[in-house]
Amino acid sequence: MTSENKKITSRDVDFATWYNDILMNADLIDYTNVKGSMIIRPYGYAIWENIQSILDKEFKRTGHKNIQMPMFIPESLLNVEKEHVEGFAPEVAWVTQGGSEPLEERMCVRPTSEVLFCEHFKKIIKSYRDLPLLYNQWCTIVRWEKTTRPFLRSREILWQEGHTMHETEQEAREETKRMFKIYEDFQRNVLALPVIVGRKTEKEKFSGAVETYTIEAMMYDGVALQNGTSHYFGQGFASAFGIEYLNKENKLVTPYQTSWGVSTRMIGAIIMTHSDDHGLVLPPKIAPIKVAIIPIGTNEEVLKKASEIKENLEKEGITCLLDDSSKSPGFKFAEAEVKGYPIRLEIGMRDLEKNVLTLVRRDTLEKQEIHLDEIVIEVKENLETIQENLYNRALERRNTMLYEAKNYDEFKELAQNKSGFIKINWCGKETCELKIKEDTGLKSRCILEDEAPNGPCICCKEEGKHKIYFGRQY
Amino acid sequence: MTSENKKITSRDVDFATWYNDILMNADLIDYTNVKGSMIIRPYGYAIWENIQSILDKEFKRTGHKNIQMPMFIPESLLNVEKEHVEGFAPEVAWVTQGGSEPLEERMCVRPTSEVLFCEHFKKIIKSYRDLPLLYNQWCTIVRWEKTTRPFLRSREILWQEGHTMHETEQEAREETKRMFKIYEDFQRNVLALPVIVGRKTEKEKFSGAVETYTIEAMMYDGVALQNGTSHYFGQGFASAFGIEYLNKENKLVTPYQTSWGVSTRMIGAIIMTHSDDHGLVLPPKIAPIKVAIIPIGTNEEVLKKASEIKENLEKEGITCLLDDSSKSPGFKFAEAEVKGYPIRLEIGMRDLEKNVLTLVRRDTLEKQEIHLDEIVIEVKENLETIQENLYNRALERRNTMLYEAKNYDEFKELAQNKSGFIKINWCGKETCELKIKEDTGLKSRCILEDEAPNGPCICCKEEGKHKIYFGRQY
Repeated sequence: MTSENKKITSRDVDFATWYNDILMNADLIDYTNVKGSMIIRPYGYAIWENIQSILDKEFKRTGHKNIQMPMFIPESLLNVEKEHVEGFAPEVAWVTQGGSEPLEERMCVRPTSEVLFCEHFKKIIKSYRDLPLLYNQWCTIVRWEKTTRPFLRSREILWQEGHTMHETEQEAREETKRMFKIYEDFQRNVLALPVIVGRKTEKEKFSGAVETYTIEAMMYDGVALQNGTSHYFGQGFASAFGIEYLNKENKLVTPYQTSWGVSTRMIGAIIMTHSDDHGLVLPPKIAPIKVAIIPIGTNEEVLKKASEIKENLEKEGITCLLDDSSKSPGFKFAEAEVKGYPIRLEIGMRDLEKNVLTLVRRDTLEKQEIHLDEIVIEVKENLETIQENLYNRALERRNTMLYEAKNYDEFKELAQNKSGFIKINWCGKETCELKIKEDTGLKSRCILEDEAPNGPCICCKEEGKHKIYFGRQY
Repeated sequence: MTSENKKITSRDVDFATWYNDILMNADLIDYTNVKGSMIIRPYGYAIWENIQSILDKEFKRTGHKNIQMPMFIPESLLNVEKEHVEGFAPEVAWVTQGGSEPLEERMCVRPTSEVLFCEHFKKIIKSYRDLPLLYNQWCTIVRWEKTTRPFLRSREILWQEGHTMHETEQEAREETKRMFKIYEDFQRNVLALPVIVGRKTEKEKFSGAVETYTIEAMMYDGVALQNGTSHYFGQGFASAFGIEYLNKENKLVTPYQTSWGVSTRMIGAIIMTHSDDHGLVLPPKIAPIKVAIIPIGTNEEVLKKASEIKENLEKEGITCLLDDSSKSPGFKFAEAEVKGYPIRLEIGMRDLEKNVLTLVRRDTLEKQEIHLDEIVIEVKENLETIQENLYNRALERRNTMLYEAKNYDEFKELAQNKSGFIKINWCGKETCELKIKEDTGLKSRCILEDEAPNGPCICCKEEGKHKIYFGRQY
């Protein structure tokens, strides 16, 4: 790095400090004087805008409509569904005063909006003709976390929450899985995250859900990040709220419900999966700027060519940054690396004379000499290659950190000495899940629905009911 | 109307009830049990999404970047700028407890974010190279209003707030006016609102601003809606926060600041300007659905033709709704009128045989027989005509409610007997502004910067300094 400000701690030396160095040096966030709150700076927010734009199209394509609910939930409304309030009440922010007057009933800032949607659904669902009702909301939620870390666990979270109502259990279960698949595909194909998917245990599922499906991403340090969930609610909330409709047989019946959400946490996952000691690395499909063009020297012809290249690439929808500031080329190269622009094009007078320029891939830092006539095609091909390479590199790394323990001694040894996820046979009982957590600090990640157990529970040695991953988590 | 639910009170009988009937019957909002909070339903939210999409492009085109600030402001931070805290503290919601613990310092939910931006600017503005800094934020703000009305005055407001910093006063003043002009053009050309623009008085300007420019829209009932403001701050906030940078001469100096915002209140303005006793009327450029296609009967050929028309129009970027439900044609026509789709196309078997259909304009309810071969061109032309007509109709109506008072008796008589805005010569003193308010209930709307006073102040009879509009307000 060319500037003291931009010094980045090595991720293998101190991963937490490295993460913070990336956040600050790539201008993704800034801290404020309020604990647990952060500013998402323009470069970080542009990543979120890209995420929103892609997912919003997917939600609309699958028939969902956006809606905006209130930000506040009166305490009595939060209390309607018992499991739900027990799960969320300990971590909400309470508004107790409006202007100069104390409120008659305190209200929390929404930690999630199930109860608000249910209250509305009760009013608007009258007949089977009103179903399915497929809603989504983009908003900010608040959870009063004690320990916070930008993007991973913060008090304010930008997210989307889908809320849907259906005539039948089957239809609601299909919706739960459909949206879960959209999340999974998005994270694999756009964010280049080799995620592991499965079902949460009874203990770890969403408060009030029948079933919670979870996307578990593994960070560079082997620690898990729960990176999106989709819930099947059955009729629990609907019954608690008295939501009923006239079915085709003209009988009053209770509908089936789902909810699903992903958040800015995904930005944390991108950073902790792909970035390196030189700075941020972004998958091309989500990068706000795909190509940095850096002219070397101040020659008019070079600058003209650089502008022309920018224009040609942007015609193809490839967003470019032309850095014609007065900083030194070395400084600009380092800056482009810190910011994680997938491709850097360097062009000087000598290059121009030879009708070439230098293309540098951010993922590998490899340099290629490119003919000026072939820039567009070369940039396109390299963007695709980088996208693939980031996924494959993360997948390979993740695979070296997946373990399987045949017995409890093996499990404890792995838990103590290795980072990553450990697969086991499990009886399905919470007592064993809690014992494992107490003995090793590892929490259950997800039950693998497509994999049958092949032995007894490693903990109690009773019949194995599930294959399940355990791991440490952010 | 074909259904009891959809009965709309006449706007000339009871304007407030009419407004509420439109909001509810067009499915724009729903109420909740929380006073002053509302749900923006999908059809209402789609209007906001269109507003956001158009304005966001304008902001980006003029070099602004989106950012996300925290939602909470600690009390001590709100207190930094004296005028600002006095203006906002009486109407904020206070968070006093996080989870089960009381907060050491209470925090308000942002009523606006100047102080948060200033705290951040102090950290990131070091040199003239960092200026201008052009930021915008889309977010929800909270103002604890005592009397609320959906979109016009609610406790939660969806809005955008631009915040910029500049090297010189001139540049900051230009930015204030540039963004103000973008608002004005948008409201005239897209929302079809014949707005009146000017400067706020000292008394009515934003707490902490040097100057506030305001867009004043006049509703159907002659009452004003302040529909967007742009503020020039001078160095007030920057000095209070100690923001300084090294200028080109390497001296530490204080920058100049602006902020500007528009909100979901604009949706209220659209409704109260254009809609009628049949329901919502939307300007085509902001309508989520431009054309409703209603097949008459269940003939296969008719349905096939209706689908084909939808496809052809959508190819041209014209969003259509094909209502092939089992409801009666009469019900569907009424529904299309309540929802304010700019154009309705009715097609039955007899039309098909004659190779025609009926096009109904929502603004005038006029019917036209259209050749099937000419649908695309006719729809396009009619959408343009409707857009223009809505503006001109609102302009003509507004002009009949603009008055000028030559003396105080005339003013008081107009204030008592007429709805609308009254123009006067004014000395510029707050004493007269307050007296007028006390005597008549009318508040100052805006100083007309391009119009010179031509007589003494109508109130104190001292020298007239400004031409100014007074009016009642929402």
